Amino acid sequence: MSLKFTIEKKLSNNRGRAGRIETKNGVIETPAFIVVGTKATVKSLTPEQVKDLGAQAVLANTYHLYLQPGEEVMKKAGGLHKFMNWDGPTFTDSGGFQAFSLGAAFDNKVGKVAKGKDEIDESIFSPHSAMAKVDEDGVTFKSIIDGSSHRFTPERSMEIQHNIGADILFAFDECTSPHAPYEYQKEAMDRTHRWAKRSLEYHQKNRSSHQSIFGITQGGRHEDLRKESAKIIGAMDFDGFGIGGSFDKEDMHNAVGWVADELPEGKPRHLLGIGEPLDLILGIENGMDTFDCVAPTRIARNGAAYVGSGRINILNEQFGQDFSPIETGCACYACTHYTRAYISHLFRAKEILGATLLSIHNLYYIVNLVKRARVAILEGNFEKFKQGFLSL
Amino acid sequence: MSLKFTIEKKLSNNRGRAGRIETKNGVIETPAFIVVGTKATVKSLTPEQVKDLGAQAVLANTYHLYLQPGEEVMKKAGGLHKFMNWDGPTFTDSGGFQAFSLGAAFDNKVGKVAKGKDEIDESIFSPHSAMAKVDEDGVTFKSIIDGSSHRFTPERSMEIQHNIGADILFAFDECTSPHAPYEYQKEAMDRTHRWAKRSLEYHQKNRSSHQSIFGITQGGRHEDLRKESAKIIGAMDFDGFGIGGSFDKEDMHNAVGWVADELPEGKPRHLLGIGEPLDLILGIENGMDTFDCVAPTRIARNGAAYVGSGRINILNEQFGQDFSPIETGCACYACTHYTRAYISHLFRAKEILGATLLSIHNLYYIVNLVKRARVAILEGNFEKFKQGFLSL
Repeated sequence: MSLKFTIEKKLSNNRGRAGRIETKNGVIETPAFIVVGTKATVKSLTPEQVKDLGAQAVLANTYHLYLQPGEEVMKKAGGLHKFMNWDGPTFTDSGGFQAFSLGAAFDNKVGKVAKGKDEIDESIFSPHSAMAKVDEDGVTFKSIIDGSSHRFTPERSMEIQHNIGADILFAFDECTSPHAPYEYQKEAMDRTHRWAKRSLEYHQKNRSSHQSIFGITQGGRHEDLRKESAKIIGAMDFDGFGIGGSFDKEDMHNAVGWVADELPEGKPRHLLGIGEPLDLILGIENGMDTFDCVAPTRIARNGAAYVGSGRINILNEQFGQDFSPIETGCACYACTHYTRAYISHLFRAKEILGATLLSIHNLYYIVNLVKRARVAILEGNFEKFKQGFLSL
Repeated sequence: MSLKFTIEKKLSNNRGRAGRIETKNGVIETPAFIVVGTKATVKSLTPEQVKDLGAQAVLANTYHLYLQPGEEVMKKAGGLHKFMNWDGPTFTDSGGFQAFSLGAAFDNKVGKVAKGKDEIDESIFSPHSAMAKVDEDGVTFKSIIDGSSHRFTPERSMEIQHNIGADILFAFDECTSPHAPYEYQKEAMDRTHRWAKRSLEYHQKNRSSHQSIFGITQGGRHEDLRKESAKIIGAMDFDGFGIGGSFDKEDMHNAVGWVADELPEGKPRHLLGIGEPLDLILGIENGMDTFDCVAPTRIARNGAAYVGSGRINILNEQFGQDFSPIETGCACYACTHYTRAYISHLFRAKEILGATLLSIHNLYYIVNLVKRARVAILEGNFEKFKQGFLSL
């Protein structure tokens, strides 16, 4: 069976809602933050640690798993769940974002470098600079690992995702920069719609019975394009929808609201790549059900921890003699067992456990922020919850 | 109270034995492998993972903790147990080995470099090359972190160890190379004996009630020196003994046997820095009760896993498609939840969880090898156990 989505309660703005996504591998109570496990591992954590901090589902990356270890290994292993020892629901993105961004970054020498393997200078998303070559049929790109040439089409992306074996897959899309010209946004959006149709058709013919597919809406920061994309993708027979993250941060909640109003109400909506605390709250308010973002674990590996409505960096000198937890009152494993002084020591000493503990804290913080938003919706006090966060 | 040691059963060779070391923070059933947590963390593992794999006690490093985070932080934190969230028995070594080896290595430019922060080219242990300067009172050495100059004396080493707060401490000693001339071995040994007396006196006046002290016997690979050192240190009022690891591998069990025969039977004996499977079995047979070694976690971080009586390296190409556990039949968390293919993928993808999983397997392997030796002693079939291992 594909997923089943139920809305339990709605906000008075008629956008935000609390609900449940049921998959073969378990239920996701929404709104929910989906933890990122790019390469079939949530960086520096065991699946038990991920479950213990309250995560309900994991999102892995098609591009990365296609290159390493390869879809054949994933298939022979019995699929993503079994391979990585995660028995809850799983998502895979389509690989489109990475094929464009990392492919383009590979040997792009002048001022357009990737900031890291997953962190991209978005100026590379332009019709002119792309080392990843787009045509009507798909995209040809270079491997971030060895520079070898590869090709994704909507059908290939779905085939790879079928082999990886997650519960919820995404249609193959072209992700543009919010700063690309309107004409290119439109062109890429129209192509994404044609690719969505091909992704859906391939998926319906070839999927395993437990697999669902989300269509991705694009349209950059333009209200007309965002609405048009949501209308067109929303009319297709997808099990849910992804909202492509191509907008400036300040436009985000507007764009999300435009899209939410156009999408069919009864299907779940995933806001791709968004994970900062305030963005999550605004996304939830504007009708998003699930989210994913690498930020909580990435900033953790750099020594940063979410505290209150901001961040601290544990490497700051003052924390070396601070025997309080990362965040007073936090119920996560890191905060209930260790001090800032200890974690600060671990980072100074370049000990791996430091990254593990801050990753646990940051994911707990984000996962539980979204859970508290859910409870606030169910209990009818979302506005109070939001104001409480803003006044921190 | 200091520790209490009880012998439960002895081997017919009158050397090897099974027993119990009782400390304020728990019991160590011996023989036992003590897991190394150099900088107040067992590398890449949580204390819960360390406990789950069967470890009974952790050994931290005085030199490293003195430099970072410093003894004052350790003391303010409430000591090692509380700082690192380990509620079982703990050891600290004296820092002597590192002061000599890492201090000497610091700016030793010609052919005498340290192989790594903990892995030392032992040719630096010579009276001529030492950048660490030994005098009768103590040793002046350079910090591995910033090259700053520091000084350990027997009294300072004990004071630092008291501040760190472990259950079992070691007297300050001079560790020589097994290849140093006989005359220097003798000179260093005699100095170690004088330092042992000073360490013991300082300890007895200043210790916390739960802290015990082990004296360290030296003597290189010379039977007369080994026996003399064991006799002299053995006659002092220590709670147990450390056997300094300055011998060639092939001499090890001989040297250990000489020492064991001279030491008082009723006190525990710790063989410092020894941890290869066969060495452990020979050490146990020759009267050693506890052991420590960084090898299980260090080789894990390089992709190596103990299997049978040897090792495999998970990065070998064949393991990329091998869906069996690291070691068939192994009951550790890594082997019961993951395949060689998955762990191989984690290492290729440079994912931290790979080091965590192999560290769990290797420590489980070593800790349980020693536990099986204990059971074999108690059940009277140690020789069979040993032959079984040799025939693997």
